Amino acid sequence: MNKYIIGVDIGGSYTKISLFNEFGIIEVKWELKTDVSTFGENIIKDTCNSIINVIHSQKISKEQILSMGVGVPAPVINNSFIVNAVNLGWKMKNVKDEFESILGIKTVVENDANLAALGEKWQGAGKDLKDICLITLGTGIGGGIISNNKLISGAHGSTGEFGHIKLYPNSNVKCACGGYGCFESFASAKALVANAKSKLKFFEGETKLKSPISPIDIFKLGDKEDALALLLIEDYCKHLAWGISIISSIFDPQAIIIGGGISNAGDILLQTIKRYYAKFAYKPTINTEIKLTTLGNDSGMYGAAFLALEAI
Amino acid sequence: MNKYIIGVDIGGSYTKISLFNEFGIIEVKWELKTDVSTFGENIIKDTCNSIINVIHSQKISKEQILSMGVGVPAPVINNSFIVNAVNLGWKMKNVKDEFESILGIKTVVENDANLAALGEKWQGAGKDLKDICLITLGTGIGGGIISNNKLISGAHGSTGEFGHIKLYPNSNVKCACGGYGCFESFASAKALVANAKSKLKFFEGETKLKSPISPIDIFKLGDKEDALALLLIEDYCKHLAWGISIISSIFDPQAIIIGGGISNAGDILLQTIKRYYAKFAYKPTINTEIKLTTLGNDSGMYGAAFLALEAI
Repeated sequence: MNKYIIGVDIGGSYTKISLFNEFGIIEVKWELKTDVSTFGENIIKDTCNSIINVIHSQKISKEQILSMGVGVPAPVINNSFIVNAVNLGWKMKNVKDEFESILGIKTVVENDANLAALGEKWQGAGKDLKDICLITLGTGIGGGIISNNKLISGAHGSTGEFGHIKLYPNSNVKCACGGYGCFESFASAKALVANAKSKLKFFEGETKLKSPISPIDIFKLGDKEDALALLLIEDYCKHLAWGISIISSIFDPQAIIIGGGISNAGDILLQTIKRYYAKFAYKPTINTEIKLTTLGNDSGMYGAAFLALEAI
Repeated sequence: MNKYIIGVDIGGSYTKISLFNEFGIIEVKWELKTDVSTFGENIIKDTCNSIINVIHSQKISKEQILSMGVGVPAPVINNSFIVNAVNLGWKMKNVKDEFESILGIKTVVENDANLAALGEKWQGAGKDLKDICLITLGTGIGGGIISNNKLISGAHGSTGEFGHIKLYPNSNVKCACGGYGCFESFASAKALVANAKSKLKFFEGETKLKSPISPIDIFKLGDKEDALALLLIEDYCKHLAWGISIISSIFDPQAIIIGGGISNAGDILLQTIKRYYAKFAYKPTINTEIKLTTLGNDSGMYGAAFLALEAI
């Protein structure tokens, strides 16, 4: 009788789910909308129902599922609790217990960016490396740290919160975290678009950039040497390289892997970051590899499955 | 027959050595000048001779020594090699092999600041904590990271090189590492004294600060509310708290322990750092403990003994 592992990645918009076989290969992959209404009270129930439906349709019994990993966009304590998941509407919740009481499947819970790091280490850009950092560039900036093949969680489940590295302590740019001058206020997708909007108003050169602006538009125009796009990309990647150089000097990983929506920008992003990194990096870490994710949006789901596999 | 462990901390001026019993208590502690002449070629021989003399005088045989730990002021690869130890004059050296071939005692080698972190975790300010960072404030700034009770070494033996966190990427202040705008150029003992010298020239208020200036003079005068000393301490501790807040947001330790010569400044240092830390810290890490070393200059030696104990 075949055995399976389930990997779940609950995001603020969609919940991604996969059924992995014991060899770590995805057999079924699907997603559902995350219902964040009424403080996200339906999220866990909806996810469980969806899992039950899919395994029934695959003629798989619950006994064939060895364990399940769940990623959530919040710090997670003891692979179980969360205190506050803003994007889901959750406060104080024992996510592990709720899943286990509905499905009867052993469940481990972890922060989504941490799981993305674990996923890349397992089957992605960090394969065969023992010390990596993943940095996710989306609306905000998140991340995860793998040291000596293990995920580091930290004292408050906040290890790898790269978005809140303080770049400008005297800044008046306020971050969603309540602080000022945070890395993500200068190097997230949101920051890039905000900067583009503000520069577009006063730009006197020639540019094809126009509203509504998406981050990927900027990189596409950059590939075509659009003057404003190149200006924006330089400023953006300079901040990114600065933050990455700080991470390297503290943690000295073998590789820094870039994930999140912005990673789709590809080569122009990577090369511009590398150019500034060579300038900013502490010498002994100057050859640290900087790579793009190979699992893309699935990395969190892979990490969830890997954590579940380890928990058997 | 009693068993012993040897802890050695080789510094640019002095080499500190201790004989620990199996319960981790120091039985004999001594030091010798580090002879850095002719590329430090006598350092290992001198250290070994000194050890042989002391154990003979204690009527201890080499067979009673279980193992030895050695701290060096350089990145260390595989608890054995160094590539470059500027302060000792060493290039490319298998420190482990050289000690073992002279003494015939199993030896493990590690970076001195990493060992200081391990020492504080074993018997100092980090006792009973599983995730700590040590930051050493001396001529430069060094550090070490303990995660889940284990020392992290990184891909190039450079984990915890906090001194080279880039605070000001556009700065023209050059660091000993060759980079610009490094943390240690603003928050090391050397930076504090340099800032004092430059401000003293133009200071128009009343101050008792005068040349030659030592860092501890500045803190002592600060305790007496000397206007210039207070100004210097504020600026210094603000930079320190900024750097510490960055470390916290990346690694999320339970405690950050401050060591090195500056830690002797005591309460005025700690309280001023804490005041700025509360302002700069990422909220989930705002309660991270900031503490002074309790082992002082001995922490590296303790760490060396602990590593040796683990290597048996």
